[in-house]
Formats: sequence, structure tokens, C-alpha cells
Amino acid sequence: MTDAAPRFRDCFDGLAAIGRDPAGGWTRLAWTAEDRAAREWFAAEAATRGLAVEVDSGGNQWAWWRPRDAAGPAVVTGSHADTVPRGGAFDGALGIVSALCAVSELRAAGVTPGRPVAVVSFADEEGARFNLPTFGSRVLAGTLDAATVLDRRDGDGARLADALVGAGVDPSAMGPDPERLAAVGAFVELHVEQGRGLAGTDAAVAVGTGIWPHGRWRLDLGGEANHAGTTGLADRRDPTLALAAAITAARGAAHEAGGVATVGRISVVPNATNSVPARVSAWLDARGPDDAALDTILGRWSASVDEVAAANGVSVELSVESRSGAVLFDRSLRERVTAGLDDAGVATVALPTAAGHDAGALAAAVPTAMLFVRNPTGVSHSPAEHADTADCVAGVAALRVVLQSLACSSAALA
Amino acid sequence: MTDAAPRFRDCFDGLAAIGRDPAGGWTRLAWTAEDRAAREWFAAEAATRGLAVEVDSGGNQWAWWRPRDAAGPAVVTGSHADTVPRGGAFDGALGIVSALCAVSELRAAGVTPGRPVAVVSFADEEGARFNLPTFGSRVLAGTLDAATVLDRRDGDGARLADALVGAGVDPSAMGPDPERLAAVGAFVELHVEQGRGLAGTDAAVAVGTGIWPHGRWRLDLGGEANHAGTTGLADRRDPTLALAAAITAARGAAHEAGGVATVGRISVVPNATNSVPARVSAWLDARGPDDAALDTILGRWSASVDEVAAANGVSVELSVESRSGAVLFDRSLRERVTAGLDDAGVATVALPTAAGHDAGALAAAVPTAMLFVRNPTGVSHSPAEHADTADCVAGVAALRVVLQSLACSSAALA
Repeated sequence: MTDAAPRFRDCFDGLAAIGRDPAGGWTRLAWTAEDRAAREWFAAEAATRGLAVEVDSGGNQWAWWRPRDAAGPAVVTGSHADTVPRGGAFDGALGIVSALCAVSELRAAGVTPGRPVAVVSFADEEGARFNLPTFGSRVLAGTLDAATVLDRRDGDGARLADALVGAGVDPSAMGPDPERLAAVGAFVELHVEQGRGLAGTDAAVAVGTGIWPHGRWRLDLGGEANHAGTTGLADRRDPTLALAAAITAARGAAHEAGGVATVGRISVVPNATNSVPARVSAWLDARGPDDAALDTILGRWSASVDEVAAANGVSVELSVESRSGAVLFDRSLRERVTAGLDDAGVATVALPTAAGHDAGALAAAVPTAMLFVRNPTGVSHSPAEHADTADCVAGVAALRVVLQSLACSSAALA
Repeated sequence: MTDAAPRFRDCFDGLAAIGRDPAGGWTRLAWTAEDRAAREWFAAEAATRGLAVEVDSGGNQWAWWRPRDAAGPAVVTGSHADTVPRGGAFDGALGIVSALCAVSELRAAGVTPGRPVAVVSFADEEGARFNLPTFGSRVLAGTLDAATVLDRRDGDGARLADALVGAGVDPSAMGPDPERLAAVGAFVELHVEQGRGLAGTDAAVAVGTGIWPHGRWRLDLGGEANHAGTTGLADRRDPTLALAAAITAARGAAHEAGGVATVGRISVVPNATNSVPARVSAWLDARGPDDAALDTILGRWSASVDEVAAANGVSVELSVESRSGAVLFDRSLRERVTAGLDDAGVATVALPTAAGHDAGALAAAVPTAMLFVRNPTGVSHSPAEHADTADCVAGVAALRVVLQSLACSSAALA
């Protein structure tokens, strides 16, 4: 274990060298040159470890330790390599690096798995470019039909279909693969924690209980472009006033319902200092402890926006971009993971999360569990996102325990 | 006069053919390919009329009917050819087209001016690209030092100095030209009205009384980028909440002070749906009937923003981008213009404006007047900006009367 820290750092630094953003943090958006470099890095790291790499029909990379045609259901671990714009070094990356390190350690220790084992790197988890979070895992699971979104364009006007082709992925071959998923007996995703649930506790690692329901809505506010100097206040149809209501009502409604809501993306047309805007688009990200709470947030928020818009002659169009129901991770797998860590002397706590994850996207099709690694500030999606190396190494050790217990135990999976 | 309408339309349509924006309206931003095409159009129209074109040290084009070295102070008319993004066809363009048409009509009528006469097309009046409104007229008047802003960048990162070079203007030769301005006895700018002061009256043309004081401020709000799902509301430093306050307080403060205020330009970083933003920049455009009213608007607005920012751990930086004091147009010239139109049977009304104009930028150095042409909806800086052709033709006729009276009268100018 004394060598575990430098081995972890070596592997982690390799991925962190890709997509450093001159403006701060890391930017590896799906299907870009940076993303391609990360995919090449993953393939090379897998090859170094003797793992056989293939790409599935969701664009996700799988690196097999024992081939998938071996007897019995597979044990799979992994996460994603893409980031939000100017995001942190840990979100997604920690799960991939920890999986590669855990497999290396098991191999070095002479462990031979009794089942197929794979490390998976999911494509476009963040959805930051085409606003399609957990793209790869949802396409694979069949809960997102790739064909319906291939014409989507990113902020620069590039089509998703063209971006896929540019990244060497054939859009026409994308679709669900139920056979692949049916052959997975357990998926365990390790992820940096993105809140402060572990901060101040004795545990470096948590076992996830589930994912809050969450969704993204797009709000289009239509006003009338006009001269900012000569147009009297009463003559204006200014969509920014409804935007202001959307921002403040998101905070207020989330507070009341015990959830969170954010207007983090805004687009103004024509966006000129001396023009009353013609149009404003804004995106709401909302999450709540249960579906009723999420409905309450959306209802109150929408009513506040409608009221201010109506008072200012502004039109409102609201559309759902995505909505995911509450996810409760597989109870039996969760208990098995917790017990295995307990047996190995690893203290854990049980933790829900309000973040979407590929594990959540797969949970309906595959028995799924998550491990979270302590984040002292809770900061994520930011260059300041951090986990101590000691905690990361503890995360690798915990994942190694979990993989070994699942892959070598004679007890049936799923 | 029966041919005046088609002659006006011919000339107007020539300029309106340049910079049609596929997204709607007209986009001719300073020092772009569209702007260059408009400058070439102006030079060609001037040449057709036998006017001699030169470019001054502010990058403005002058087309001389009688050369400027002729005896006595010059009579100058004109406006600007640039637009805001997706703006209208009349703002600026109407003043240039009307000036060219009025000169043509005077020449066709055999009028010989007793003084030098010029049509001027000012550079970058809107300031939409580098946020430097009335750039050309202010550089010429010496109230803007070009050298201090050459490093400014547009939204795509292009430097002003490079944009000037690309447009064939030497940045190092830019600066004030007091001799040129001292030789101007009267400047008259015709402009489409941008409010509804003439709508519903019997007059197609107004004589401007002055320009409200106005300014632009840049607001930089610093928060902390964070995950929109996992960061509790209490743990956030979300700059959008202060943005919402800036939007609503602009409206409230302007209403109380009898002015106008607009937050029409917003920039969010990283601008991702699932991230609490790290930073928001917003620009305030505020105008009031006098300087005290403008100070009141700014003071109340700023206090509201500071309060919400402080409550949310958001830092505030406020900087003035430009501020122009109240302009009262030259009383003697204004009375002379009004009387001349009255003698010719042209009904006018007197009107202040809250829009900045090159006439305002020159008013301290040159006796200046403005004519406004009726705008039935008051809409401006929008594709829907409109003036009836009959009113435009009435504007040409009024400008012709004014030019003839100023250029041929034996009464001294200024």
C-alpha cells in the first residue's frame, strides 16, 4: 500500500494532463479533440494492463480483464472522462482512474476473477455540449433514442451527428444493447462526492443509497427588441424582467421544497448594451428529495415566471429537456458492498446524492451501486474541486475490496 | 416632388442591401466586411454625385460638394451607416441617404452653395462591437483618446487596433482634428425618431432640442462555480441572484427617477445548465432627463445590487464604460432651422431625445442641430424599426430646405 499513492497519482495525472483550459480548470467536452485524447488515453492505459478494449453501441469504451464471453454475469466498474466547461479534475476521472488502479492492484496481487470483469468509460456524461447528460449510458440502456437527437447543435452550431462522425463513432449504429446489459451482474461506479456529506466524518468513502429525481427545463422568453434609450418603460416588452423572476423564483421554490434549483445558463438576443433584448433563453436545473418535491419546485417557479412575463407582455415557452425519476440503488448489491467493506475494516457512511450519474441511468437495467470519495469543500464542477490523495487511495482500496468480493465470490450475482 | 419617393427608395435600398442578417434585420458592425461594404457604397454614391470623398482622423468619411477650402465655414449634414446586431434599416442609414438625396435635389434644382457643404458618414456610432458608442465623432472631437482603447477586444476576441487596420484605417493616425471642426459652421443630423414623440401628431419632422445625459456601466459579479445538483443552497455563492437584482432594480430605479435603464447584455461563465456560475457580467444602459436623475438611477441601482450580492457572498465590481452629460443643441441654430422650415410651410415639433448621436458628441465643438423623422411605433434597434416612405421624403425635403437656407444665406453661420 505504500506505493499506492504514487501509482494513483501517475495514472490520475495522465488524464489530468488532457483538456487543461487556459481559462482555468479542465474542459473535455464530448466528441471534441480533448475528448478524443481522453479516449485514446483510456485505450492506452487499458492496453498497458492487458485489458481488451471495445466500443459499445452507446459510444462507451469497455476494457475487459476477463473477456465478456467467460462464464456468468460480469462485474463492471467505471465512470466518465468528459467534464463541464472549466470543471474540476476529479468528477468522472476519479472513477476511471480508481477502476484502472484497482484492477492493476488485483492483478499484481495474483487475483484471478471468477467472472468477466470490465472497466467502462461512459461517453458524454455531463451533457455540457449538447445538453444530453448521461448520453452514452442512456443510449446503451435504450432510455434515450440517439436517432431523435442527432440534429441537435452545440453552442457553435455543430450537429451532434457530425461531432460523432468526427470522433470516429457511427451515429447510425447507435442504439440499445440489452444483451450486453443483461450480461452485467453488477455495476459499481466510484465518484468524487460533490457535496459535504463526508466532510468532517471519519469515513473517506460512502456507499450511495440513491439519486434524487432531477430535470432540466428550457425557458424561452419572447419580448421586443428596442432602443434602450428612447423606448419608454411602459412601451417595453423586456424579457429580462421575466429572466430575473426565473432566477429568484428558482432559489425561493427550491428552498421551500427542500431541493435545489439553478439557472446556470442564459442566452440573450441580440445581447447589446443599448438594446432592450428581443429574446432570452434560460435553462433551469432542478432536483428534489422526491418526485413530489421536484413537481412543487417546477410548479411554483413556472407560476412566478408566468406572472412577471404576463405583466410585461413577454411570451413564455417552457420545454422539458430531460427528467429523471428518483433512483434507489439495488438494495441487495448495496448491502453486499457495505458488508464487504465492513469486513475489510473500511468505515463507510450511507449517502444519497442529487447528482445524475451513469450508475443512475443504468440502475433500471443492471444491479448498480456507487461509492463516493470525500470532498472536503464539496466544491465540484469547478477548478477548485478537490479530494485529498489519501482519500483517493482509500477509494481505490475500497473499490478493490468490492471488485474482489464480487468477482471472486461463489455467491451468485444479481 | 413626384419623383422624390422612388429616388429616395433607390438610394435607401442600396444601403439596405448591405448587411442583411440571416437571423433577421441588419447587422453592420463597425470595421467588419459589412461595414466596409457600406463605406464603399457611400464613396460610390458620393462619386456619382460629383462629391469628393476623404477620411478624417476619426475614421469618418466626408463627401464634399463645395470643397472645404472654399470661403467661410462649412455646412455639414450626415449620420452613420453602422447598426446594432440585428437592428433596423433606418437608424443612421436614413440620415445618410436623406443627406445624399437632399444634395442631389439641390444640385438638380441648380442651387449653388455659397459655402462649403459636406455629407459625413460617421464611423462606429452604435459602439455595438467594442462598446464605444459615437467612436468616430468622439475621436474627431478629442473627447475619446483612440490610443487608450486600441487594445479593446470584441466578443470574438478581436482587437480594435487590428479591426481598424483590417478596414484600411491607420490606428496610429487617429486623433482629434480641431481645425476641421473649427471650419464647420453648422452640423445638422437627420435621424429616424426612436420613440413615439411624433406618432399621432400632424408633423412628420421634429427639430431636436437636446439629448438626455446617459451612460453605460459594466457590472462584474464574482461567485463560485459549483455543481448545480449537489451544492446546498446555503453553500452557494451564486452571482445570478445579484444579476436578477440588477435587472429588476434598473427598472425600478429608472421608473422612480423618470428615466430609462436597461440590462440588455449579459455574459455568464461557464454558462452550463448544471453549474452554479462562477461569474456573471452585465451591462447597464441608463439615461435620465438631467444629470441628477441619472445619478439617482445609478445610486439606487448600485445599492440594490450590492445588497443582494453581499447577502449571497458575491463580489461586485462596477466600472463606467462611458458617460455623456446632457446636450442642449445650439439655440441660435435650432431657432434658425425651425424658422426656415416654418417659412417653407413645414410643420415641426420640438423634441428631446434619450438616444446618443454623433450630433451630441460634436455639440460642444460645433453648432449642431437635429431633425427627427416620424416613427409610427417608436420601435428602433430592431428589424421592425420603420418610417413611412412619405415621411422619409418629407424628411429629405425638410433637410433640403435647411441646407439651402444655411448654405446660401448671406447671414453668418455660428
